[in-house]
Amino acid sequence: MPLINKLCIIGVGLIGGSVGKAVKKHGVAGHVCGVVRRKGALDEVIRDGAVDSATLDVADAVKDADLVLIATPVSAIVPTAVGFAPFVKAGCIVTDTGSTKVDVVKGLETVLASRGFVVGGHPISGSEKQGVINGKPDLFDGAPCIITATKNTNGAAITLVSKFWRVLGARIYRMTPEIHDAIFARVSHLPHFVAAAIMNSLGQAEGGPAQLLQYAGSGLKDSTRIAAGSPSLWRDIALSNRKELLKAIRDFENEIKKVRESLEKSDGDALEDILMRARALRSPLV
Amino acid sequence: MPLINKLCIIGVGLIGGSVGKAVKKHGVAGHVCGVVRRKGALDEVIRDGAVDSATLDVADAVKDADLVLIATPVSAIVPTAVGFAPFVKAGCIVTDTGSTKVDVVKGLETVLASRGFVVGGHPISGSEKQGVINGKPDLFDGAPCIITATKNTNGAAITLVSKFWRVLGARIYRMTPEIHDAIFARVSHLPHFVAAAIMNSLGQAEGGPAQLLQYAGSGLKDSTRIAAGSPSLWRDIALSNRKELLKAIRDFENEIKKVRESLEKSDGDALEDILMRARALRSPLV
Repeated sequence: MPLINKLCIIGVGLIGGSVGKAVKKHGVAGHVCGVVRRKGALDEVIRDGAVDSATLDVADAVKDADLVLIATPVSAIVPTAVGFAPFVKAGCIVTDTGSTKVDVVKGLETVLASRGFVVGGHPISGSEKQGVINGKPDLFDGAPCIITATKNTNGAAITLVSKFWRVLGARIYRMTPEIHDAIFARVSHLPHFVAAAIMNSLGQAEGGPAQLLQYAGSGLKDSTRIAAGSPSLWRDIALSNRKELLKAIRDFENEIKKVRESLEKSDGDALEDILMRARALRSPLV
Repeated sequence: MPLINKLCIIGVGLIGGSVGKAVKKHGVAGHVCGVVRRKGALDEVIRDGAVDSATLDVADAVKDADLVLIATPVSAIVPTAVGFAPFVKAGCIVTDTGSTKVDVVKGLETVLASRGFVVGGHPISGSEKQGVINGKPDLFDGAPCIITATKNTNGAAITLVSKFWRVLGARIYRMTPEIHDAIFARVSHLPHFVAAAIMNSLGQAEGGPAQLLQYAGSGLKDSTRIAAGSPSLWRDIALSNRKELLKAIRDFENEIKKVRESLEKSDGDALEDILMRARALRSPLV
């Protein structure tokens, strides 16, 4: 017997599509229904093997689902829940894949209070690609997946959502939305905007950036890869995690200032110390 | 007949070792002699297939070489040349693999004036590994290699050094040392110190960095990979390219400030504009 009778995935893009493919691969759900926004996507998501059925009608899709997974961009998660909340069955568990959690979980808990059980989720997929076509059933294999718990979170619901992601191959970490957002401001959101700032600073060079990029080694490529991500997605992530991201940016600005000041003073020992600390801090990241 | 009768490689680490292996693979030189600093490395570099013979005696090694390639850390290039300059034969070509070029080429031209022909070189290997053992004969395959020309550079010497790297698989770009340093401050040296600053800013987080790193996705890993490089090497690169790197850091600081100020004002459109510009600038880097 599958873990879930009916799974409803709202937003069948890279993440939602990969979840669908992984769920079908591992036989986690009896039926996977996908909710898409474009009529043209209805056939596409079925043909691509991400879902068993597809619809544009979110109210209809959620009504007999045991688990609803909202895999839309961050800014659409709560508005989407507003739309379907009246239609979920009693005891339905609602989770999401959003990159920020404080705003999202607070919003979902408000919207779904007394109707469904909310468990915040954030699988760390690490792909800057988009679209169901790039979705892969092994996207979450070995990847961290954060499950959030608040004072309102139902214990059985958290167990089920954790089990769900574990079967998909993810390593589960449980924490509060607040701790999640503080951590991801630093390990994910900051590097994203730093990569963008590196690229934009190259745009300031004499002769223009195209002239520079032909000489780029893998260092620049790797260090700015995430700058290829979706601007509107990341704009919303930043706004949703504004306070923590601002803290992370200010700490980072202090560190880059130390580099500049050491270099202004031609202080080689200070520069080497900066690099040694960074290398030591990074050593667990192999 | 090989392109070069006798090649002398001074410093048989990752770069020098890879050059030796590539030279032997492509039959570019009749004999490859390596100059190492440690007695223990004498056997190692021969056993590893990087050179035909090895010595600690740089004066002896260069005396009948047609091409001397200095593959030491940046700060050792000119001092090394000071040591061997009196011993090169007339018409010997001296090149290097240093990551900065203004200081290095100026120094080499002064030291070798009237004794050998100097051609500055910089193959972009894009590896943060070190040591001859990590050297690979295909390290330069398809990689950019900068060859510098100044008003003192001999035309035949530049042709030979260009041919040498081309046989090793590199794409040759010719420019002045000044243009080289301005470009690489931005595409290489800046991202290196930015990666270090990201890691060091994570060190500021509550709970400490180890707590954070277990949640890192490939975004952080990729964007800070270069922070694993050698601190002493990069300290010297920064000092040697101080003026241009400071310009690049200041431009970068302006860009990260724009991110912060947009976020402080919760200006989503400005954030999206920053991300869109960055993505467009990066699009040639596939």
